[in-house]
Amino acid sequence: MKGMDFKTLTGYNEAMRIISSYKFHVHYSTMAAASSAGYYSYEDVKSPVNFPAENRSAVDGYALRYDETISSTKTNPMLFRLIGKLGIGDRNDHATDPGSCIKVFTGSPIPAGADAVVMKEDTEDDGSTVKVFRQVRKYQNISLSGEDLKIGDTIIGKGRMIKPWHIPAFIEAGIDRIKTVNIRIGILSTGNELVNGTVKNSSAPMLLSMMSRKGFTGEFLGNVNDDIDEIKKSVENYDGDVLLITGGSGPSERDIVHSFMEEYGRIFFHGMRIKPGRTTGFGEYGKKPVFMISGLPVASLIAYENVIEPAIGSWAGIVRDKEKTVNGRLERSIYNNDAMKMFVRVSLLSDGDTVRVDPFRVTGSGIISSVIRADGYLVIDENVEGYADGDDVQVKLLE
Amino acid sequence: MKGMDFKTLTGYNEAMRIISSYKFHVHYSTMAAASSAGYYSYEDVKSPVNFPAENRSAVDGYALRYDETISSTKTNPMLFRLIGKLGIGDRNDHATDPGSCIKVFTGSPIPAGADAVVMKEDTEDDGSTVKVFRQVRKYQNISLSGEDLKIGDTIIGKGRMIKPWHIPAFIEAGIDRIKTVNIRIGILSTGNELVNGTVKNSSAPMLLSMMSRKGFTGEFLGNVNDDIDEIKKSVENYDGDVLLITGGSGPSERDIVHSFMEEYGRIFFHGMRIKPGRTTGFGEYGKKPVFMISGLPVASLIAYENVIEPAIGSWAGIVRDKEKTVNGRLERSIYNNDAMKMFVRVSLLSDGDTVRVDPFRVTGSGIISSVIRADGYLVIDENVEGYADGDDVQVKLLE
Repeated sequence: MKGMDFKTLTGYNEAMRIISSYKFHVHYSTMAAASSAGYYSYEDVKSPVNFPAENRSAVDGYALRYDETISSTKTNPMLFRLIGKLGIGDRNDHATDPGSCIKVFTGSPIPAGADAVVMKEDTEDDGSTVKVFRQVRKYQNISLSGEDLKIGDTIIGKGRMIKPWHIPAFIEAGIDRIKTVNIRIGILSTGNELVNGTVKNSSAPMLLSMMSRKGFTGEFLGNVNDDIDEIKKSVENYDGDVLLITGGSGPSERDIVHSFMEEYGRIFFHGMRIKPGRTTGFGEYGKKPVFMISGLPVASLIAYENVIEPAIGSWAGIVRDKEKTVNGRLERSIYNNDAMKMFVRVSLLSDGDTVRVDPFRVTGSGIISSVIRADGYLVIDENVEGYADGDDVQVKLLE
Repeated sequence: MKGMDFKTLTGYNEAMRIISSYKFHVHYSTMAAASSAGYYSYEDVKSPVNFPAENRSAVDGYALRYDETISSTKTNPMLFRLIGKLGIGDRNDHATDPGSCIKVFTGSPIPAGADAVVMKEDTEDDGSTVKVFRQVRKYQNISLSGEDLKIGDTIIGKGRMIKPWHIPAFIEAGIDRIKTVNIRIGILSTGNELVNGTVKNSSAPMLLSMMSRKGFTGEFLGNVNDDIDEIKKSVENYDGDVLLITGGSGPSERDIVHSFMEEYGRIFFHGMRIKPGRTTGFGEYGKKPVFMISGLPVASLIAYENVIEPAIGSWAGIVRDKEKTVNGRLERSIYNNDAMKMFVRVSLLSDGDTVRVDPFRVTGSGIISSVIRADGYLVIDENVEGYADGDDVQVKLLE
């Protein structure tokens, strides 16, 4: 009998198909490359230069002609005239003549005429003559021009999250500013109980944190009563990209978000075959996509992670990191009585070589303790009746 | 012969032992619980309350006495007088008498006298009488007081990173402010080439990003010439917790960081048996711990991830997330000729059921392209001579 209150519940895959087909315009920001980590790249970023721009020494030592070191040994060193020194970033106006060498450091340019560097440890230097105790190959200990980045090499692809280690590559390539995906999500929380203060809004700050750790901008639009006009006033002038309305998402008489959406917007679906998160809906208001989700923290977390974030990701062309999973042995049977897609929080226990997967017993979708103690999710598909005690299951790890 | 330029190279484990034994005072910040995600908790945070504080309905339906529903069926419903309604956050001044029920919603308090909730779907309500078509057990559909959090339950342990889903638990428990680990790390970059602009500083902005994603505060103290007095002027008034000096960390004549440290501070070790990152050193200046690391981006990244971050973590009692690893088949032999602890960047390729591990060929430790294309590290211990083509190896995944 459950779920009869919604006319229909939309299956997860069908819901994601409807959401993905929504036409969405992706905005971008231009920001300093040096502080772009944690945002998604709006475009393919390719190196406009070769880096290094010129050949450089990969060690501290002496730049010389490799063929003049042939048969150098500890007991029979070749001798070279020391004719100069090139520091990192020095103007490369030196040249080695036959029989001569130039002192260099890691990162120094390679002077004209030289084609190898012998490491300092393999030499003896009296200030005017350098004894070389080991022969070197052509280009040995030299970082060749373009060895790190060549013109046209992709530094980061469109839709990928910029990591701290991309920054040196941007800087090496002379790229000072980066276009990043800029998606602003307005969160409006509905509920008389939030406005009169008998219940604190614990979902909105969680959602705002979820957004910022994924490079989106969450903007809190406030708590409002379960009142269509109050909702309208709070969202009608919002100039962000996406609306997320928490609370009042159910089908009951006190749930008025669907009434607001029916009157002023459109509903594409309302009610999803997922647990928790059954009251999740999707529509449009003022040319913006609108997600309606439960105000309960766990249901809103599940809806955010499994519906909203992938939805926005598909609009913005975001390439998600591969999910990390682990296999283990289920400790207790789980039944999927309602043919829902279930997201069951589990904790993992190591037991020698096997991993034991312990699902949390929970009554309501507000049970936040099941999330703070969880290591991951077990996802049960709509058409799977459940898993038995002892089954081998795959768990999606929490980040 | 390599490494003879340093008097001795300190092994990784010995270096970490020396660093760990350094006496360090950990500071904390007090911040709004709602915006504390991404920082480390300074202390064990325990719930001072039971949550829910009172019994609550886990569904929309009718609160009543369970023993009055016994033998209710679809064809033989029991009848209850509807005597009121309790919304979420309403004052719980209702009580059910025998034979009566009160309308409730998910999250409503349970009125005195009632000990179960029958779901709306299992009833028929004409406004004054409710027909109940199904019997319920004692406490069925009720979230009991303390079911989510009990007094004394740990919400987050000392040294753990606060995640967005901890925020609802803090708020539910009435905890508005949280003490978080507050470690300020000053980065000073040395090198004439950075000051005269022939080389851009690409390491410092990467390190600053690495720090902030791990809940630390990085503070850039500037670029200075390879000059002891310039270094001293830049760090002598710094009031943060840790100093990190990049560049000039080698043992050569142009590397003057060790001279500065010898003259004005102390060096505990200088030169590590790791590759890249061989020039990493550790000392003290002005009662602050000082890390000396290479200015080259990859060497500084490896030193930060594998030496500095674990070091600060050990001082601050930080509990690190378990490293994620994957096993695969090495595509090409790697030799550890110098008996160093090697951090080799690899890319991973899926090949049916097996994972192929492809190590990057690199000359210098400045090869940032090997990092931007890498999926993980292969760590080779000092006493391991290498791995052969086809070996099964474990790879540490990049976050």
